[in-house]
Amino acid sequence: MNTLNNQLFADRVNHVPKSFIREILKVASMPDITSFAGGLPNPLLFPVNELSKCAEKLFRERGVEVLQYGASEGYYPLREIIANRYNEKQNLNITAENILITNGSQQALDLIGKVFINPGDEVLLERPTYLGALQCFGMFESHYREVSFNDGGLDIDQLRIELTDGDVKLFYSVPNFQNPTGGRYTLENRLDIVNTLKEHDLVTIEDDPYGEISFSGDLFPTLYSFRPDKTILLGSFSKVISPGLRVGWIVANKEIISKLIIMKQASDLHTSNLTQQILYEYLTKYNLDQHISQIRKIYKNQRDVMFEAIQKYFPADVLYTKPEGGMFIWLTLPHRFNARKLLQLAMNKGIVFVPGDTFYASKPDEQTLRLNFSNIPENKITKSMKILGELLNT
Amino acid sequence: MNTLNNQLFADRVNHVPKSFIREILKVASMPDITSFAGGLPNPLLFPVNELSKCAEKLFRERGVEVLQYGASEGYYPLREIIANRYNEKQNLNITAENILITNGSQQALDLIGKVFINPGDEVLLERPTYLGALQCFGMFESHYREVSFNDGGLDIDQLRIELTDGDVKLFYSVPNFQNPTGGRYTLENRLDIVNTLKEHDLVTIEDDPYGEISFSGDLFPTLYSFRPDKTILLGSFSKVISPGLRVGWIVANKEIISKLIIMKQASDLHTSNLTQQILYEYLTKYNLDQHISQIRKIYKNQRDVMFEAIQKYFPADVLYTKPEGGMFIWLTLPHRFNARKLLQLAMNKGIVFVPGDTFYASKPDEQTLRLNFSNIPENKITKSMKILGELLNT
Repeated sequence: MNTLNNQLFADRVNHVPKSFIREILKVASMPDITSFAGGLPNPLLFPVNELSKCAEKLFRERGVEVLQYGASEGYYPLREIIANRYNEKQNLNITAENILITNGSQQALDLIGKVFINPGDEVLLERPTYLGALQCFGMFESHYREVSFNDGGLDIDQLRIELTDGDVKLFYSVPNFQNPTGGRYTLENRLDIVNTLKEHDLVTIEDDPYGEISFSGDLFPTLYSFRPDKTILLGSFSKVISPGLRVGWIVANKEIISKLIIMKQASDLHTSNLTQQILYEYLTKYNLDQHISQIRKIYKNQRDVMFEAIQKYFPADVLYTKPEGGMFIWLTLPHRFNARKLLQLAMNKGIVFVPGDTFYASKPDEQTLRLNFSNIPENKITKSMKILGELLNT
Repeated sequence: MNTLNNQLFADRVNHVPKSFIREILKVASMPDITSFAGGLPNPLLFPVNELSKCAEKLFRERGVEVLQYGASEGYYPLREIIANRYNEKQNLNITAENILITNGSQQALDLIGKVFINPGDEVLLERPTYLGALQCFGMFESHYREVSFNDGGLDIDQLRIELTDGDVKLFYSVPNFQNPTGGRYTLENRLDIVNTLKEHDLVTIEDDPYGEISFSGDLFPTLYSFRPDKTILLGSFSKVISPGLRVGWIVANKEIISKLIIMKQASDLHTSNLTQQILYEYLTKYNLDQHISQIRKIYKNQRDVMFEAIQKYFPADVLYTKPEGGMFIWLTLPHRFNARKLLQLAMNKGIVFVPGDTFYASKPDEQTLRLNFSNIPENKITKSMKILGELLNT
């Protein structure tokens, strides 16, 4: 193979971090491996029969329409139903015109990057943050600033300091059950953040794929609700219905939506009509709230089993978050450990997880690691956490 | 609504041409309008029942797998079947590893832009060219050069001149039944092009959504076959099965594919498993060749009807291409006309088409227009072409 002249490649190629997770997931898919590494929803909860019936109905009633080209902004009735759900559950005041359908939230980040980020622009990230955001913003060659994310939310003093010079253009925020930490901003923290942002022009990206997987069912107000003209709210069906369909959405004011639509059209014309309309049918025929309450119950049990195992088998000086929702727990090991070294030992025992260093824009904390609890049977959680505990106690 | 500080938007926002077609298509979807404007396949040819059966089987047999996250590079068996088809039909020598699945060809352009284009890089385009390419490359703030596309292919002298300084990084080419002209590179023209490119480093993007819709069934060799390490070949199911599913693909050497996969992951993780696997099922259970030969037959008839109407009703000095495939005819009006003015008159009579000026990177030819023949019943073609002819004769 003749290799290409390397000068042909764009500069951004060197700014996208390779996903270490991809490598781990290759191991994770091998038989007899227990994987705490993935970020996968529990497939036993996928509404397979219901979605199958929706597809069958669609092909029967609107087959030709579903298979033809569609609108870049997405299927109108689906946009409408999403808007109405926000108005009902989150007390927003939006319409279908505030919604753009995307291929999952990841594409929302790409489209936002296209509309807002010039190379070198300052993007403020949580510390640690979602790896997919680092990969996406890397494509736009943005510069990063960071603000610490603790269990109850952001460090407000740090936030103030980072905003002082007015150079931050975008603030990427995952307020609910964040990937990787599982942490959620408290109500008080939200009010402090909104108050701090008040004097600033910057746009907040509020990425919220996990918000409804709140184990107690309580929902905190969105950042969008306080600052609708300068907040872009992202949602997704990936964690509450199915990720394989690749349907998410953006909520924003019409000015921002109109610019995002132009980028959506230039990027892939539109999201699959079939997957959009299957979800529309599902939402009109079935009870999503009931389905979500099932997810909450099962994930809560899995989290509880993981908590118990940590308390029972792990050294007392291992710190961990106490997520009230979502799919992840975040561990901080004492200084005598290194998460990548622990991973090596764990892999020899057939266990994988993601070392936390991969979730930092800079100066990674090598004592940290992320454990997924949504996609592992309870008995396997206990068994494998016990083995991890033994590794940490020797 | 508070408008945003305009400095928040990225420079690329001003480089993406608005699609005039979008505006026309809004008119086109009104009742009683005859639209020659769209680029839509004929929906009567969509294999609705077959795809419905595929979906039903999938949900029944692999529902959970289909609804879970999948690989960024695409569904392996689908990649394999696409590679094999090329090896069989086009005499290529590729494997699944040379294929990356995308959301239609439009996303392929986006991913290629991400891997190759820095702002200001020189991209060579056909004159006229596909509007979606202008929109996509606009996002990457590329500079354009142009080479004339006539009925038999590219102007080789111009091609040589544009390549002389060695600054062109990408050459965007649609060799078969191009949108908008319907033209196809002759075999001789292909050989001349490949010969001219020989001494150069640049990468050719060979966009080929229409190649198989060759009315006679003959296929010319791909540019990829001559220069596989420096050509990126794009294909799509949009014109031969269904555009609404949004599944296309990229063929390239493994070095290029590996860089494109990183961008695909950062852009939207992966293309919908459901749509990919439905197409895989279709390709294994049904005969795509038979389906394509039906498309060829019907589109050829529709083209013939349009030819007849031009000859019968249009002034003799209107020039037009003679496409041997695809979905479009390209007209060049005598100097006494202007296509946008004709469009105004035509709209008053309930007829729309796309003025050709929208397909030029620079110095648009305002005498040109594009007529779609794939998505209009034959009797409507004759009737509306007669009215257009009357407008041109008054």
